[in-house]
Amino acid sequence: MDVRIFTLDDVRHLLKMPRAIELMRDAFAALSSGRIESPIRTTLTNDHGTVLYKPTWSAAQNLFCAKVVSVFPGNAHKDLPVTPGIIVLNNGETGMPVALMEAGFLTSLRTGAATGLATDLLAKPDASTAALFGTGGQAGHQLEAMLCVRDLKRVYVFSRHNENAVRFCREMAAHNSNCELIPATNRNVLAECDIITTATTSAKPVFSDREIPTVVHINAIGSLGPNRSEIPAETILRATVVVDHREAGLREAGELLPLMNDGRLPTDFAPAELGELVLNKNYKVERPVTVFKSAGNAVQDLACAAEVMKLSDDTDHGQTVQF
Amino acid sequence: MDVRIFTLDDVRHLLKMPRAIELMRDAFAALSSGRIESPIRTTLTNDHGTVLYKPTWSAAQNLFCAKVVSVFPGNAHKDLPVTPGIIVLNNGETGMPVALMEAGFLTSLRTGAATGLATDLLAKPDASTAALFGTGGQAGHQLEAMLCVRDLKRVYVFSRHNENAVRFCREMAAHNSNCELIPATNRNVLAECDIITTATTSAKPVFSDREIPTVVHINAIGSLGPNRSEIPAETILRATVVVDHREAGLREAGELLPLMNDGRLPTDFAPAELGELVLNKNYKVERPVTVFKSAGNAVQDLACAAEVMKLSDDTDHGQTVQF
Repeated sequence: MDVRIFTLDDVRHLLKMPRAIELMRDAFAALSSGRIESPIRTTLTNDHGTVLYKPTWSAAQNLFCAKVVSVFPGNAHKDLPVTPGIIVLNNGETGMPVALMEAGFLTSLRTGAATGLATDLLAKPDASTAALFGTGGQAGHQLEAMLCVRDLKRVYVFSRHNENAVRFCREMAAHNSNCELIPATNRNVLAECDIITTATTSAKPVFSDREIPTVVHINAIGSLGPNRSEIPAETILRATVVVDHREAGLREAGELLPLMNDGRLPTDFAPAELGELVLNKNYKVERPVTVFKSAGNAVQDLACAAEVMKLSDDTDHGQTVQF
Repeated sequence: MDVRIFTLDDVRHLLKMPRAIELMRDAFAALSSGRIESPIRTTLTNDHGTVLYKPTWSAAQNLFCAKVVSVFPGNAHKDLPVTPGIIVLNNGETGMPVALMEAGFLTSLRTGAATGLATDLLAKPDASTAALFGTGGQAGHQLEAMLCVRDLKRVYVFSRHNENAVRFCREMAAHNSNCELIPATNRNVLAECDIITTATTSAKPVFSDREIPTVVHINAIGSLGPNRSEIPAETILRATVVVDHREAGLREAGELLPLMNDGRLPTDFAPAELGELVLNKNYKVERPVTVFKSAGNAVQDLACAAEVMKLSDDTDHGQTVQF
């Protein structure tokens, strides 16, 4: 039984952000049109953390894909990744395991790519200024995704600890010479921003509704949970909200669930899905503020993992292990 | 992220049947006493087959274990394994993936080991003659397990196609010089047998109730499903039935479910679990005919996979891949 193994470096070299954003277009369209079978994930929890098992089947890619991803917050203090993971791919015709792949980098990349797609669909075409909240593991790909789809001249970077923002801007500047990256502490600059992306673990809104401009697109991709919300309720209530997957978004997003529970959003609140915007080119955004709330979906992993396999064909990336 | 990789050959060299049978003793005791968290498996099915995802957590081993196993009957005609699989192990304190393992050989070994344990607990101590139905992928380990726990002088081997039985006996004779292996077509020989093991894909009983002796232990490990039964209803009704896991056994075993549905077994029929026999040394088997019906459980995979990892420490088996 020959299985291809793709390390973090293989994934990094093979799959680039512009291609990942294209993949998200098809993946979310497939999800919204019911062409992907993505059952509820299984979770196992002990005192230290949770391991999530997320299997998916896609006829289009002829692959079964399962991501085994752990969420162990204590790892941050052990110099270990907080969300390490492995992806297992099985061939659709034979069920044979065909590939094993590092999942941490891929998860961060595909989460960025969803932000890229949402921003491309919803932000002003001539957007030139953005803000990024958070400088953790996801931040680099979030920045890269925004820069992929809009010609940004300036990005303000916020962190709970300003020295992290300074370090992040310095590191990212090396790859992004056309855009000025500015560590920021004063939220007054948000008034200039066409795009705001929040990628934090904050349980409370990271800005207030009156700080944002009249027209703005917001990506909220930070940590999930019914008691967490990076975005103020007032902003949500006056925005056009888009989610990756309606069922997951309404179940898991602290930006939405409490507002439905306390009656500020209707009980039948049904935000559009990203895939519906892709499928319906005439979709009309009604409101000047748009919010993309991401819960993350296994179709993103499958699309990216399948592409890594495909792209590896003519390279020496990936090693074969005879199991 | 360093992950150890164990191939079929690694598993074969590291874990032997006698040790695997010992492991089953602890594993089933842990299962019956609720010390293992083993949620319902997730399945994904397409036109060709099914992929099953079976995750488990064990505090005793400090490991999360997930078996991804495919069941693709058509593979038999493609010279591919019908049930290929991979096991993913994650550390309990960090959630880090620590090992990936070929799962096909291990599944067959642990299924044999359960038969070994059941036979040790239930068959006559001086059992000398056995019968084995089926010569497929599981048969070798089933034979080995019976030979591990009883000093058998003679094993009759039945197959739908007698030439398969002849081939199987010839191949197995090389490793088992103390026991006579006899291809059999006439079920009259069952009257001599102290142990009968069925490891077939038959939907119908492979013998009739009047063909078996007064005192006999039967292991039924063949294919599962509400419409499949390798054992005659009459035998089940007069036997002491033992299962690996009550819930799974009553849900999945065609030997039991239809008899409960048509009233021949009470609706509250509660066969003993193998682990209960291990835990309760005073357990008294009431009837001269005993049947162990195996559905297979993820605790068996976890116990064996953890042991393979442990045994590899002082050997050069297993390779490390930096993911």
